[in-house]
Amino acid sequence: MNQSLLQHFDILFNPHSVALIGASDKLGSWGAGILSRLLASSFPRRVYPINKNASEIRGLKAYESIAEVPDPVDFAVIAIPFPQIPTVMEECVGKGVKAALIISGGLAETNEEGVRIEKEIVEIASRGGIRFIGPNCMGHFDTSSDLSMVAFVGQVRKGPVGVIAQSGGYGGRIVLGGLDKGLGFSKFVSSGNEADLHLEDYLEYLAQDEATKVIALYIEGLREGRRFFQLAREITRKKPIVAMKAGKTATAARAAKSHAAALAGSEAIYDTLFRQSGVIRVEEDVELLDVTSALLDLPLPKGRRVGILAEGGGSSVVTTDVCELTGLEIAPLAPTTLEKLNSILPPYWPHGNPVDTTDAIVLGQQVIFPCLSALMEDENVDAIMLLGGIVKAADFPPLEKEHPLLREKMDKFIQGMEEEELRNIDVVAERMHQCQKPLIISRGINAAVRSSRVFNRLREKGIPVYPIPDRGAKVLAHLVRYSEYLRGE
Amino acid sequence: MNQSLLQHFDILFNPHSVALIGASDKLGSWGAGILSRLLASSFPRRVYPINKNASEIRGLKAYESIAEVPDPVDFAVIAIPFPQIPTVMEECVGKGVKAALIISGGLAETNEEGVRIEKEIVEIASRGGIRFIGPNCMGHFDTSSDLSMVAFVGQVRKGPVGVIAQSGGYGGRIVLGGLDKGLGFSKFVSSGNEADLHLEDYLEYLAQDEATKVIALYIEGLREGRRFFQLAREITRKKPIVAMKAGKTATAARAAKSHAAALAGSEAIYDTLFRQSGVIRVEEDVELLDVTSALLDLPLPKGRRVGILAEGGGSSVVTTDVCELTGLEIAPLAPTTLEKLNSILPPYWPHGNPVDTTDAIVLGQQVIFPCLSALMEDENVDAIMLLGGIVKAADFPPLEKEHPLLREKMDKFIQGMEEEELRNIDVVAERMHQCQKPLIISRGINAAVRSSRVFNRLREKGIPVYPIPDRGAKVLAHLVRYSEYLRGE
Repeated sequence: MNQSLLQHFDILFNPHSVALIGASDKLGSWGAGILSRLLASSFPRRVYPINKNASEIRGLKAYESIAEVPDPVDFAVIAIPFPQIPTVMEECVGKGVKAALIISGGLAETNEEGVRIEKEIVEIASRGGIRFIGPNCMGHFDTSSDLSMVAFVGQVRKGPVGVIAQSGGYGGRIVLGGLDKGLGFSKFVSSGNEADLHLEDYLEYLAQDEATKVIALYIEGLREGRRFFQLAREITRKKPIVAMKAGKTATAARAAKSHAAALAGSEAIYDTLFRQSGVIRVEEDVELLDVTSALLDLPLPKGRRVGILAEGGGSSVVTTDVCELTGLEIAPLAPTTLEKLNSILPPYWPHGNPVDTTDAIVLGQQVIFPCLSALMEDENVDAIMLLGGIVKAADFPPLEKEHPLLREKMDKFIQGMEEEELRNIDVVAERMHQCQKPLIISRGINAAVRSSRVFNRLREKGIPVYPIPDRGAKVLAHLVRYSEYLRGE
Repeated sequence: MNQSLLQHFDILFNPHSVALIGASDKLGSWGAGILSRLLASSFPRRVYPINKNASEIRGLKAYESIAEVPDPVDFAVIAIPFPQIPTVMEECVGKGVKAALIISGGLAETNEEGVRIEKEIVEIASRGGIRFIGPNCMGHFDTSSDLSMVAFVGQVRKGPVGVIAQSGGYGGRIVLGGLDKGLGFSKFVSSGNEADLHLEDYLEYLAQDEATKVIALYIEGLREGRRFFQLAREITRKKPIVAMKAGKTATAARAAKSHAAALAGSEAIYDTLFRQSGVIRVEEDVELLDVTSALLDLPLPKGRRVGILAEGGGSSVVTTDVCELTGLEIAPLAPTTLEKLNSILPPYWPHGNPVDTTDAIVLGQQVIFPCLSALMEDENVDAIMLLGGIVKAADFPPLEKEHPLLREKMDKFIQGMEEEELRNIDVVAERMHQCQKPLIISRGINAAVRSSRVFNRLREKGIPVYPIPDRGAKVLAHLVRYSEYLRGE
């Protein structure tokens, strides 16, 4: 990317000194929230609160204006009512600020006056060599430099996911949801009205950022569609881009305009744009996080033929439905696989894919992992969906009114089962990567499952567990299509 | 329903004495699991373990066959390999058993021999006046009589949901998922191959069961479509039926046949059948539980016009999308509502539906509940979707490295915010029922949210909170259509 822009980005994401214009100690306010984030950083960074009505905030000397700060300032955060922004931006130019973030709303997303003031701000910044994020946004963060302007998000786990969101709230959902799921993040930008820097600029920056391995986008409307297409086509060869595009219906598109001054554009155009540039389009944020995790943890499948292993017929039927309906194929099993399964399962198993273990498990037999291995080794199988049959310990109802001796025996039994599952998971995870066949699990998830050792081991090993098979099939279909795109199919 | 059938059902769901044929103390086996459930019951019920190779199981005297039991037995559970079932069924007839449950598989779902044996079992039972559940199923339970044959489910919360499932595994998912969600259950049947009793029989039984307020079905194939239609048309006038129908694709339908010997039938026919009889059709079990809860907790809306209140533009755009795409309408707000909202929100709010609170909340203003009231009072609004803006305390990142005094101030601030939300929720819940306008919330749900007082209060008050607006829109669309069906629209 352009060297001058890169320099501005380096300041935005890792400034030496920050002036917080609109710093406050009023709890719940944006100015107080950002100051908390700045003070929580482990990086030695000079922070200057700017506030006309205070001489000290949270133990730091406060200044009436940025002009009064005695040291150089390379980055300014602006969180004050919008009519005052042009004046403040002039002062930033005077001070030699290079990069800024404008949190405040009330500009181009509202009315003609807002449009006028926003233009004025852009002119002043542009004249003074300041590049800025926003306005009308919720800030950005960078976990490498431990910088965060995002007041409503606490300490963020470092990791490979970079996020650009044309809605701060939705961006926040993605980050908070991802943290809950165990994901880590590299950089985040809530791009707001994109008066100066556009989503496409951030995209170019994340493309060259080594900490970022997957790029997640929340889009309402692109300002530079052609540039996006060209960038995405290059980037998706190296790192996946997952995009949620909102504002599909006419009313929603109007709402997008009044919210982020974005033009939603035609849905068909977006579909084509994403498809032709290898961007993975998702419908909502849970799906976005599912796919993002899967891209980081799972191998890309070589084809779309799924082996389904289900503990119980209902699961096998439902999973077959969702797989076929998302465009996956039910793999025809090789004769050798059928033979192997014959030797594992009761004689009345359905002898085909989906592989229903019937009542083998009810009879207390350990069949899941042998069956999994058989499917893993089948050349006709590109990916595996496992339904139930795992995290078994969590399925044992607690013993009520039972004799202590039985309780002890039961505990031992369950523990043995758990140990065996843990060992098997380690083996399967390794085989999965060797064979390049993603394994996706679906099973009911309640509190007992969430807190179990087996569930956490699966998480560590990057084998996803979804409460409904539908989510697994969607993720798998995305991986398949992305893999096909990369192979030029 | 037919008095003789009703009598058989009363024995099935509340027997005086139970013979468990295939009782065992082998941990993990079905025979051991059912015995645990029987022993855990608080009801005084005679239990007779039947096992050729044991004289005592879990402290109870075991018998070689049911014929040897000295007292009368009205209900027999059969959990032994399928070839022995005809002989055992003859013995049950000889003993005067009135009702049975056959857990064992290996029958009509497998091959010609299985079909033959299953027919033989039906003939013997029919001749001897025994009605039975199964074979190839996972049992049934009744919380009123504290009877459970479902080995893999522990103590079940009593409540208004009755479940009939043509897959034991999927039925189990529904019950375990429901318990995790706070739902309670009346009766449950895993209907298996339905060699004797059909889903339609259970449906008729649940229809007249006073403890059952909503009926949830997992269907793979109906054996008596016309009867189902006639029953459903009557029942849905009084209590809602929610149905998940699997086996949509050809491969899945084949899997259904080999699993529960069910004929999946044409998708279009099922759609028409459900629509014309007022049955609410859902796609998967999470949706099934969402709708079931909502039917119990929320008032039915009078129309399909939704008021959207969103903390943040992204949420308002996404929610508008999902509402319109599920067939809901975005309500045109009344002029008086716009005036009220003008007095609550910053001047640059978008002045229409969806109502985006813009940065009002960022500025620390309490606007959500006043806005909610305004929407509740609008005659153009039939239902409300709230996005974010609530359970605020969970959104405050923990303070790191902060001064203890600030920490104390912060804690008080958050607690005050929480108290106010709790008070407001009580008011809103009451208004919701008075105005007959369901309120559905969507917001990110992480551990902090799940454990918060406000989240739990919402749950108590029956106001649903979903992690994505999509789930809320689907639920609302179901309520709207059911309400329209009942009004004859």
